[in-house]
Amino acid sequence: MYYVGIDLGGTNIAAGVVDENGRIIHKDSVPTLREREYPEIIKDMAMLSLKVIRDAGLEVKDIKSIGIGSPGTPNKKDGILIYANNLKFRNVPMRAEMQKYINLPVIIDNDANCAALAESVSGAARDADHSIMITIGTGLGGGIVIDKKIYSGFNYAGGELGHTVIVSGGKLCTCGRRGCWEMYASATGLIEQTKEAAQQYPDSLINKLVDGDLSRIDAKTAFDAAKQGDEAGRKVVDQYIVYLAEGITNIINIFTPQVLVIGGGVSKEGEYLLKPLREIVSRDVYGKDVPQTSIRVAELGNDAGIVGAAMLGR
Amino acid sequence: MYYVGIDLGGTNIAAGVVDENGRIIHKDSVPTLREREYPEIIKDMAMLSLKVIRDAGLEVKDIKSIGIGSPGTPNKKDGILIYANNLKFRNVPMRAEMQKYINLPVIIDNDANCAALAESVSGAARDADHSIMITIGTGLGGGIVIDKKIYSGFNYAGGELGHTVIVSGGKLCTCGRRGCWEMYASATGLIEQTKEAAQQYPDSLINKLVDGDLSRIDAKTAFDAAKQGDEAGRKVVDQYIVYLAEGITNIINIFTPQVLVIGGGVSKEGEYLLKPLREIVSRDVYGKDVPQTSIRVAELGNDAGIVGAAMLGR
Repeated sequence: MYYVGIDLGGTNIAAGVVDENGRIIHKDSVPTLREREYPEIIKDMAMLSLKVIRDAGLEVKDIKSIGIGSPGTPNKKDGILIYANNLKFRNVPMRAEMQKYINLPVIIDNDANCAALAESVSGAARDADHSIMITIGTGLGGGIVIDKKIYSGFNYAGGELGHTVIVSGGKLCTCGRRGCWEMYASATGLIEQTKEAAQQYPDSLINKLVDGDLSRIDAKTAFDAAKQGDEAGRKVVDQYIVYLAEGITNIINIFTPQVLVIGGGVSKEGEYLLKPLREIVSRDVYGKDVPQTSIRVAELGNDAGIVGAAMLGR
Repeated sequence: MYYVGIDLGGTNIAAGVVDENGRIIHKDSVPTLREREYPEIIKDMAMLSLKVIRDAGLEVKDIKSIGIGSPGTPNKKDGILIYANNLKFRNVPMRAEMQKYINLPVIIDNDANCAALAESVSGAARDADHSIMITIGTGLGGGIVIDKKIYSGFNYAGGELGHTVIVSGGKLCTCGRRGCWEMYASATGLIEQTKEAAQQYPDSLINKLVDGDLSRIDAKTAFDAAKQGDEAGRKVVDQYIVYLAEGITNIINIFTPQVLVIGGGVSKEGEYLLKPLREIVSRDVYGKDVPQTSIRVAELGNDAGIVGAAMLGR
């Protein structure tokens, strides 16, 4: 049996046919054209699903279910997307709309949850029953996998690991609270910390790398400067890793998963990020006389969305 | 069928016979005499178990299992208590020792986890599949119940909700980290905050309530002063509730349980604590367009240890 997974993004709709082991057989994509009304977007999702099934040499009867990963909060039980900020969807009956075109079970979930499930099935956490994935991007997404299944609470709105306060009374977060981990450990937070350092140390390599144009600073800039021995860059990276480690240690003290997976652009820094991060976490973690959580970089990259959505039906 | 639950504390060993519904049929206790070696203490636990079974009018064959709730970290799989700070136990083969005296399955777990399970079976969270319990005492204990079962990670050391940093770089915690929630929201934290206010406002009612002897301040003092209109007391209580709410909101954003149960002495403040707490949490929580977590006071009191330990075998 095979599964269709759809990764509904603000820019593209990607869909793929995935086997039992979380391997993509065939995939394709179309632009989301996000300003459209939901019936049009969902019709495109259904047509793309039929196309990838056909192009994979299969028929609808070979497919067990269609999974959809989307930003925002799903009502999994009723197959309704409660909201999706990128798309301005509100209470969209996704399952019912899809089933106008394809007579298959339709399961929906949050994209960060789907990524975590994908890494659990065929990625960096495939050997773990319990794993947590954080995705470091514009925000800081979280996905909790317990016994190889997504855990998202009784209302499907849990797993918001980025929206946990680690700096009481700290920076104002988009969610309205002050001091959320997301404000310090997301790529956005890192960029802000890098800009502050560039202003504080105008002669630093950070400034040279962007020709003095601070708007060109991205989540790599401080790491690039630090790797070339720049003091300001090193300070930013050191402090950033402390923030990242604080939240990760919190998660480990709560969940002690076998594996904690880090995804998103910043995770590409690899050992330069992971080595000091692991040192802080192993120093700070609560339970020391027990087997320890393994911290790993995500393996599936952009495919995680399709794979995880497909595996919702497994 | 019935279950025996043992609550192993630093002062007393309490044991009870509990029915399928989490109701205590009969209970009894003996002093722990904690300075003794573990074989003696465990022998007393076994003898007490046999006594409560007999005094309940039952026989060993009527009992399905014996559960033991203990401070510290268990290895549930092997029935070994890895450590228990109160008792200076290290790698104690609890199951094997107990089975020298009684031929029944023996299951062990952390006391905070047992309390959470008890509230889930027959206490404040009996209507919830997913519930979290925090116990506000000397420390800040946590117990996670998912699908009516304790979740404590792959190494049984999870659920340490008190050891999550909410004040980056804050007060030094007993665990070695800085800014753990336990330092701010435990009874110990509240007492410290009350003492600081007493020093800052020497004319406050706080000082009068303890006749100027700050060593007599306990976790009720600030609440008592605040209820009588004292400004310093009110400030302490307001700030304490903010700290408590910050950690609770974090937990809800992660788990969105149906019910979050608050146990321990401070929970006896009832609505005076809960009303402002619920207001902050409902303002700050991430998912607002979804069913909300209910925050409740624990119902089982000291019996939670026996009931939860017994229910480990259910």
